[in-house]
Amino acid sequence: MTDFEKQIAFIMELDKIKQITRQTYLSDASRKENDAEHSWHLAVMAFVLADHANERIDVLKTIKMALLHDVVEIDAGDTYAYDTAGNETKRERELAAADRIFGLLPDAQRDEYRGLWDEFEAMETAEARFANMLDKVQPLLLNDASGGRSWEEHGVKRSQVMARNERTHEGSEELWAYAKRLIEKNVEKGRLLDE
Amino acid sequence: MTDFEKQIAFIMELDKIKQITRQTYLSDASRKENDAEHSWHLAVMAFVLADHANERIDVLKTIKMALLHDVVEIDAGDTYAYDTAGNETKRERELAAADRIFGLLPDAQRDEYRGLWDEFEAMETAEARFANMLDKVQPLLLNDASGGRSWEEHGVKRSQVMARNERTHEGSEELWAYAKRLIEKNVEKGRLLDE
Repeated sequence: MTDFEKQIAFIMELDKIKQITRQTYLSDASRKENDAEHSWHLAVMAFVLADHANERIDVLKTIKMALLHDVVEIDAGDTYAYDTAGNETKRERELAAADRIFGLLPDAQRDEYRGLWDEFEAMETAEARFANMLDKVQPLLLNDASGGRSWEEHGVKRSQVMARNERTHEGSEELWAYAKRLIEKNVEKGRLLDE
Repeated sequence: MTDFEKQIAFIMELDKIKQITRQTYLSDASRKENDAEHSWHLAVMAFVLADHANERIDVLKTIKMALLHDVVEIDAGDTYAYDTAGNETKRERELAAADRIFGLLPDAQRDEYRGLWDEFEAMETAEARFANMLDKVQPLLLNDASGGRSWEEHGVKRSQVMARNERTHEGSEELWAYAKRLIEKNVEKGRLLDE
């Protein structure tokens, strides 16, 4: 295969991400969101909200991370944030998926994009901290807008949301302050269990 | 409203783009694609295929264009490429939508993103030519992968596809050569009418 054919193969393989359903509902609660929609939303947020990052970020790199961070779920599936058993095997499943999916590309692009995915996961750079913050705050925005439907369906507790968001502030103190107010509002409304 | 509140309002308004259905089917033909998924796919293609642009492009600018090019359809709806009556009123409907939707943002961002949308539409810069090429080639890839289902449902002719793609080569001669081979293949298979 030529490099061009490998790139097209990667692009067509990625079409499958449109079929990976998340647990978060769209803002009008009409249906659940999928990974392509979620990634599109994160990428838009990355440049609209870039000025609120704690540290100076490379916006292009952050957008690429946001666009690609969930492609491993084509093989590994979406593991719900509060699925304890699923989260025990998630890392192993996603590593194998990353090998296969980024392996479709020409070597230089395989290494670059796999590197971005590893960087997102490791959360040790400004871009990874900001992208991870977006990945946590976007579902909070949708959960709030959709009346907490996903939280109610799964009986989610405030303590679970807070534990999951332990490092969200590292990407943007401003966004995290806003998200915390949404969390407290939803506890008051009884959509998140208060314990 | 503060600038931050305006940005959040814009981001939440954009959630509606996930509900705008296009005529193109996903590659496995299971259902039609929506604008968020389409825009996500274009943004990934923008950086994976950037080296195939005829001219040197600013990748970040091209990605922003790809991510935002269809937000006007939140108000104006998706006008099918081969809907003659719909295309007569499309421009007017989309201009009003651009005023409203980009108008949700703080002034500087409103001007920047509205400018990107106008630039995409005018097709007079390298980035706009490349993004428009992607916007035409991506549905060709999906139509081919899904067995031409959308073309067959609408009785689309090769001459219509060629007319619609008159300027696709301006973004990338290489991508357009590939797309032309897909078109001819689908004419041979009887999925596109040969006239």
